[in-house]
Amino acid sequence: MTAAQPAAPKGRFITLEGGEGAGKSTQAALLADALRSVGIPVVGTREPGGTEGAEAIRTLLMHAPDQRWSAVSEVLLHYAARREHLDKVILPMLGRGTWVVCDRFADSTMAYQGYGLGCDRQMIRALHQLVCGSFRPDLTLVLDVDPGLGRVRTAGRGQASDRYERLDDAFHAQVRAGFLAIAAAEPERCAVIAATGTVAEVADQIRRTVAERLQMGAIAP
Amino acid sequence: MTAAQPAAPKGRFITLEGGEGAGKSTQAALLADALRSVGIPVVGTREPGGTEGAEAIRTLLMHAPDQRWSAVSEVLLHYAARREHLDKVILPMLGRGTWVVCDRFADSTMAYQGYGLGCDRQMIRALHQLVCGSFRPDLTLVLDVDPGLGRVRTAGRGQASDRYERLDDAFHAQVRAGFLAIAAAEPERCAVIAATGTVAEVADQIRRTVAERLQMGAIAP
Repeated sequence: MTAAQPAAPKGRFITLEGGEGAGKSTQAALLADALRSVGIPVVGTREPGGTEGAEAIRTLLMHAPDQRWSAVSEVLLHYAARREHLDKVILPMLGRGTWVVCDRFADSTMAYQGYGLGCDRQMIRALHQLVCGSFRPDLTLVLDVDPGLGRVRTAGRGQASDRYERLDDAFHAQVRAGFLAIAAAEPERCAVIAATGTVAEVADQIRRTVAERLQMGAIAP
Repeated sequence: MTAAQPAAPKGRFITLEGGEGAGKSTQAALLADALRSVGIPVVGTREPGGTEGAEAIRTLLMHAPDQRWSAVSEVLLHYAARREHLDKVILPMLGRGTWVVCDRFADSTMAYQGYGLGCDRQMIRALHQLVCGSFRPDLTLVLDVDPGLGRVRTAGRGQASDRYERLDDAFHAQVRAGFLAIAAAEPERCAVIAATGTVAEVADQIRRTVAERLQMGAIAP
């Protein structure tokens, strides 16, 4: 006979958002490591992607010829990948008490396709409600960087640029404004992090923000 | 100086729907030929597909491992492909007066993912409204065939089966019931065609139905 077990505490869902070259992937990995170092089970993942099917959709989106997709189709592809990711990774992990740190989530769709490409934002909100219901991150870190500096950083990576990176400065300025508008509209969920310092400085600010917002003790680097 | 031209008459949008082995592709090609023979400009197309991007989505959908996609993701992928097809082929063609004959459209999503896979039908309706608005076919021909006979026909084609063809008899019975329920709910738009006769017999019934429903003269074979 086994004694009844108390329900496992639910994991927390933390997303990192921001434009190109803001350092999201690096900071997501550092945050996951820092949380693990204080004994929290964490999985790191990314969007679009995170499952086999969603990664196939990512390839369709990121490496298509420019102007292949209608803006609405692009939004629908992102949400198809997102629902896969939710059903097969994010919700199961949270349910078993694992924290999930995700490099981009729904705010990127709103910022890139809504604010950047001019897709109807009310349509995107309605679609989010249909696909995700009321599910939201526990905390969203918006890494804010001037698009010019971000561009210098991505150029320095030496990787082939994807189709979003190839879009022009006006586009990236709109995306940045979009992220800031989203953060301003949902201040309880979102924290804006100035991503202009060194990797260590930004990581330190992120750890302090996570500890404060999620009411934890200090998180060591 | 050129005289003002009267607006070109808008093309008609005709869809063929039905389960596996109902003969949709063959009948769509025969109907397009018959309409051309009476002087109507026609383009034949299919879903999912009809544009380069939408065909790439078709490949993701049809040739994925079984159970790859969540039902909601599958619906979103179909609508991403549909919006591409609408924006780049269907609406431009109709606008210049060309008729469009399409092998499958939105009713297949409702029948397969809604009735067959049990995805929330109200969600599918809401998504259709978001993506397609009030756009509907002028005429939908529902080719009705017993799933057992349809299976014999698809097996006889000698092509590798796709993942929908591999689903079981109960699934295909639900899909058939779904198509009949859709046709019953929208009798002005839909005509059910018994697809059990020879190719020539079914083609003849389709031509007569199109002529009657779209108030045209007789269409020769």
